Amino acid sequence: MSAVAAAPSLETPLETDDPHALRLAFRAGRDATTTARLAPGRIQGNLVILPDADAQEFLRYCAANPKPCPVLGVGRPGDPLLPALGRDLDIRTDLPRYRVWRDGALADEPADVRGLWRDDFVAIVLGCSYSFDQLLVEAGVALRHWERRQNPPFWRTSIDTVPVGKFGGKLIVSMRPLTPADAIRAIDVTARYPAVHGAPVHIGFPEAIGVDLQRPDGGQALAVEPGELPVFWACGVTPQSAIEYAKPALCITHWPGAMLVTDLKLSDLTPS
Amino acid sequence: MSAVAAAPSLETPLETDDPHALRLAFRAGRDATTTARLAPGRIQGNLVILPDADAQEFLRYCAANPKPCPVLGVGRPGDPLLPALGRDLDIRTDLPRYRVWRDGALADEPADVRGLWRDDFVAIVLGCSYSFDQLLVEAGVALRHWERRQNPPFWRTSIDTVPVGKFGGKLIVSMRPLTPADAIRAIDVTARYPAVHGAPVHIGFPEAIGVDLQRPDGGQALAVEPGELPVFWACGVTPQSAIEYAKPALCITHWPGAMLVTDLKLSDLTPS
Repeated sequence: MSAVAAAPSLETPLETDDPHALRLAFRAGRDATTTARLAPGRIQGNLVILPDADAQEFLRYCAANPKPCPVLGVGRPGDPLLPALGRDLDIRTDLPRYRVWRDGALADEPADVRGLWRDDFVAIVLGCSYSFDQLLVEAGVALRHWERRQNPPFWRTSIDTVPVGKFGGKLIVSMRPLTPADAIRAIDVTARYPAVHGAPVHIGFPEAIGVDLQRPDGGQALAVEPGELPVFWACGVTPQSAIEYAKPALCITHWPGAMLVTDLKLSDLTPS
Repeated sequence: MSAVAAAPSLETPLETDDPHALRLAFRAGRDATTTARLAPGRIQGNLVILPDADAQEFLRYCAANPKPCPVLGVGRPGDPLLPALGRDLDIRTDLPRYRVWRDGALADEPADVRGLWRDDFVAIVLGCSYSFDQLLVEAGVALRHWERRQNPPFWRTSIDTVPVGKFGGKLIVSMRPLTPADAIRAIDVTARYPAVHGAPVHIGFPEAIGVDLQRPDGGQALAVEPGELPVFWACGVTPQSAIEYAKPALCITHWPGAMLVTDLKLSDLTPS
């Protein structure tokens, strides 16, 4: 082994299949604009941290809106460790980057939130489409955004989520343009995994759900080619939208695209 | 009880939920142009009777084409009884009407085939969309042909089935016009039941599979309304088409729409 190969490198851990090693790299300060494709086969999650009272209300909102907000795990109040989701998992440090929201407005984007942690904070982890994209690819579905290593485009629709307390607002959806055969396969596959957004919420008529394909609200635009259908899934950006809507005094989320990588395996998800 | 009410009636048995009573009525000579909606909750099947050598080849064709030809049951050579599919089930008499094919051409449409039975005949029962229509209705999917008490329209597509020996020809599909939400639900539900044709084979672009919506090859035409998608499933008429293609010296099938009503319950089907 050469000295060069043995030298510590911040690049190295991102190539690992070990989700714990990956989280340790983020904990040590490694940044990443996306966790897509990292630690293949492991379930990734959206993060929402709220004070206990708001967290209870938000969890009831999630229960009423399971497609955009499938709950993968919930921490105990004040406890930053989530052993059910990963070995040695510290939710304050183990994501690449965070967003801090005050009164519903973005206030900061720190690399860790150790200095903000409070003994009434509850960490909530929600299912994420990075996981179902991998299920789709494994099922043989051609995903253009995946092939291009992009994030899929997403839109705020005209569909209201089910409001609970102060949480509410419109459903956010992502879109994948698929051939008819792939659309059928993708619906079959994702319907079996409600923990990662489940079956699509719409297929075929973007205008019926208030979507202008030419103008996504985020992600990278994708053309729907002749012979393809636009297929829309509930998106994990919805909870962030619900927080902007609710304007809690304080909230912490993951930075868009920089998810929590858990130890849970996709193969452990129970098909419904 | 009045004498009128007590009088035997050929009409009575069709209102029964008992599939055995229904088969006995057909055995006694009662006719029916369709078995759709009869004995709700029981699995119905397409029938193909062939001499043993042809039957073995046809079964290999079915195995290669499981979506149009899902095998529900196979009798022993020469044995007209299928106890695995129903109590006291005699395949020669227990369907409303039959079709007799000689060299691939329709030769007769008798009410029973006792006089034609041979000791090398094998009865093959295939899954039928009457069963999955009921699954869809139970799942809350609005089916226009069902509401109108019609058969869905079907077409010969441009898609070749997988040929085996002399059996082959084009895939036949039925079409149900569905809202996007119902299309997604219908794909999810039917994908779980490969024994009754499984997931759709196409959605959205009829011309891509050689279908002219205005000109079905059978069933009752259905318009696709604005905001609806045409959803196409492999159809149990495909095996009859494969027989016309193969032109075996002798073959017996059910009369279109007049299926075998088995004792098997839809609720007994194992989701895949």
